[in-house]
Amino acid sequence: MHSVFKYRKLIPSLFVLMSWGVCVAPGIYGGQISDEGVPAATNVLNAQYPRVHSDLSVTFRVRAPHATSVQVAPSGNNNGLGAGPFDMARGEDGDWTVKIPPARPGIHYYSLLIDGFSCPDPSSSTFFGWGRETSMVEVPDASLKFYEIRDVPHGEVVIKWYHSKTTGLPRRAFIYVPPGYGADTEKRYPVLYLQHGAGESERGWTEQGRANFILDNLIAEGKSLPMIIVMENGYAYQPGELPAPGGRRASHFDELLVTDLVPMIDASFRTVPDRSHRAIAGLSMGAGQALSIGLGHPEMFAYVGGFSGVMRNFDPHTAYSGVFTDADAFNKRYRLLWLGCGVMDELSYAGNRASHEALNAAGVRHVWFDCPGAHEWQVWRGLLHEFAPLLFRE
Amino acid sequence: MHSVFKYRKLIPSLFVLMSWGVCVAPGIYGGQISDEGVPAATNVLNAQYPRVHSDLSVTFRVRAPHATSVQVAPSGNNNGLGAGPFDMARGEDGDWTVKIPPARPGIHYYSLLIDGFSCPDPSSSTFFGWGRETSMVEVPDASLKFYEIRDVPHGEVVIKWYHSKTTGLPRRAFIYVPPGYGADTEKRYPVLYLQHGAGESERGWTEQGRANFILDNLIAEGKSLPMIIVMENGYAYQPGELPAPGGRRASHFDELLVTDLVPMIDASFRTVPDRSHRAIAGLSMGAGQALSIGLGHPEMFAYVGGFSGVMRNFDPHTAYSGVFTDADAFNKRYRLLWLGCGVMDELSYAGNRASHEALNAAGVRHVWFDCPGAHEWQVWRGLLHEFAPLLFRE
Repeated sequence: MHSVFKYRKLIPSLFVLMSWGVCVAPGIYGGQISDEGVPAATNVLNAQYPRVHSDLSVTFRVRAPHATSVQVAPSGNNNGLGAGPFDMARGEDGDWTVKIPPARPGIHYYSLLIDGFSCPDPSSSTFFGWGRETSMVEVPDASLKFYEIRDVPHGEVVIKWYHSKTTGLPRRAFIYVPPGYGADTEKRYPVLYLQHGAGESERGWTEQGRANFILDNLIAEGKSLPMIIVMENGYAYQPGELPAPGGRRASHFDELLVTDLVPMIDASFRTVPDRSHRAIAGLSMGAGQALSIGLGHPEMFAYVGGFSGVMRNFDPHTAYSGVFTDADAFNKRYRLLWLGCGVMDELSYAGNRASHEALNAAGVRHVWFDCPGAHEWQVWRGLLHEFAPLLFRE
Repeated sequence: MHSVFKYRKLIPSLFVLMSWGVCVAPGIYGGQISDEGVPAATNVLNAQYPRVHSDLSVTFRVRAPHATSVQVAPSGNNNGLGAGPFDMARGEDGDWTVKIPPARPGIHYYSLLIDGFSCPDPSSSTFFGWGRETSMVEVPDASLKFYEIRDVPHGEVVIKWYHSKTTGLPRRAFIYVPPGYGADTEKRYPVLYLQHGAGESERGWTEQGRANFILDNLIAEGKSLPMIIVMENGYAYQPGELPAPGGRRASHFDELLVTDLVPMIDASFRTVPDRSHRAIAGLSMGAGQALSIGLGHPEMFAYVGGFSGVMRNFDPHTAYSGVFTDADAFNKRYRLLWLGCGVMDELSYAGNRASHEALNAAGVRHVWFDCPGAHEWQVWRGLLHEFAPLLFRE
């Protein structure tokens, strides 16, 4: 038996969404705003906040009439939004608001703290980061168009499920295929394997990184060769291997990539299945995985890139099973070793720079690229934009 | 200048995620549990709660040491988790826990109420529903395998960006291509356009609905013909048309589908571009759109399906511009009109059943299918499973 009360409760809530043709959820401010700001590109449909102003200050607003404390908390250190947490001020209507100082351009992780509880902002799309679904705010950079969606031919992102022998489970990969892939069904393409960072997922490089738009633009400008990009999840456990509290290393991603993923991709997509048409790169944790797998498997990869990897105490005589000890052999064997990092990256910059200098001293040919920015996606977008044009050249 | 404090703050948090190879975010319980329950399939990686027990009761747990009230709130009316909100009890460690009575199988929307503030559960993946990113919990049905990912050939889901003349903006569609699409590059396929409900998005039919796995399984069993399924976002605004507070209808999805989407799909995928190889269906708000577009464009669609649509005061003499007034002509023109609804659906069942009876009385050939269940995804999975095998038969 369903009470009349319940019935009437359902109708207005669904009808609001259905009959308006306007979709604004409770807690989200969807009204018209008279200031010069614009809703962040990362907002859900019709949410007017967070709102980015012309000076790149950002106003956040959330409806939480019963909370006693509401804050905006940028995630991690040296976040482009500032240190935070930023206290929000309560209005009479139960809307909490804060305008934070001008932010760095880029896409920045943040949470709301509702009476101290960390949760996403209902106005924001969620992105997988920090091990959970997390809000982000995109602060535009009017001077940079390389990661915007532009009026050029677009590739597609294919979500492909496959069975992994390593994990004993089905998994999925996100695979960028370049513009024209479906049209010329004879043409074969080189492949870049591209990994996300700690706490992120196979969604990261397209959703946070816009890798697909970056490549669309590079290819349209003739700066990159058309290529396939494979993005998988860097976490992989063997059957029965419980994720352990307390620190046991449990990722078998290297094995998964070599024995499951690469063969599946070569069987399913029109690749050129040899080392000189295969690259691997990644960011942060994914840089460690890319360097380890790429340098450990010269028979598979001729191009290797590390973006903002944590390279501590790097010693070219011992690193990566001694692959650099014979620099001449390395220089003949690998077509590209590429390291990049933001100079404000407190986690990775010093180690990357030292590694670069040690490689130089050891006579190991490589490319070193540093740029403004911290341990953040705006840097990784930029590093991909620098790295991709160098791939698969003779 | 960055203080030592900030620097040290960064290292442990990222290192926890990186060096463990185990990814568990703050607020999520990732330890080992000794009971017979299993983490819900909808949880983020390694989250041990929500936890579904053998009797389909569900335990929720969240760490919120500073909150004074924490509840689990199933969304909408007649949710399979029960009415709620369910009060969670605080443990000494700041973990809040509740075990709710046995739930209906299916995937159910819910939120946490943290001191009354509605937010996602950090342990849950998010799904786009109710106009925002929302938690869901999958309660398994051991007797149903039709929507599970099974050891059969899998199709792919292609995310395709394109420019819409209707909205003046880039948009994306999710497109299921069946197993073998990439292998035989001569073969052409029929297309089902499949729409989500109010407050949802183009992600709904694969993420909540598992449409791709449903079709993989039907095709493997020989019950459905291989087909392409196109899933787009039912919200579409014209350039400069502000989402209006106060109720103005602002969706131009019908125009978008007819003038932008169908031509793009026919130009980009190997379709059979005629009405007898084109179907349209949708759920709830999407049922209204599918019926309106499909019955308004006989030159484009020969197959039309409505899942749990809100069909009030349906009159076959006037509905859909009089398409049913000449029943013989309709019966010759359309190959399938299909209506389905859950019998516990307080929003839609009565109207659907009355519509079915009115169509019968008017001599309009159609299929009517009702089944247990409410206004929920478990029903819509089942309706797709009934509907798809009927498509594109001569």
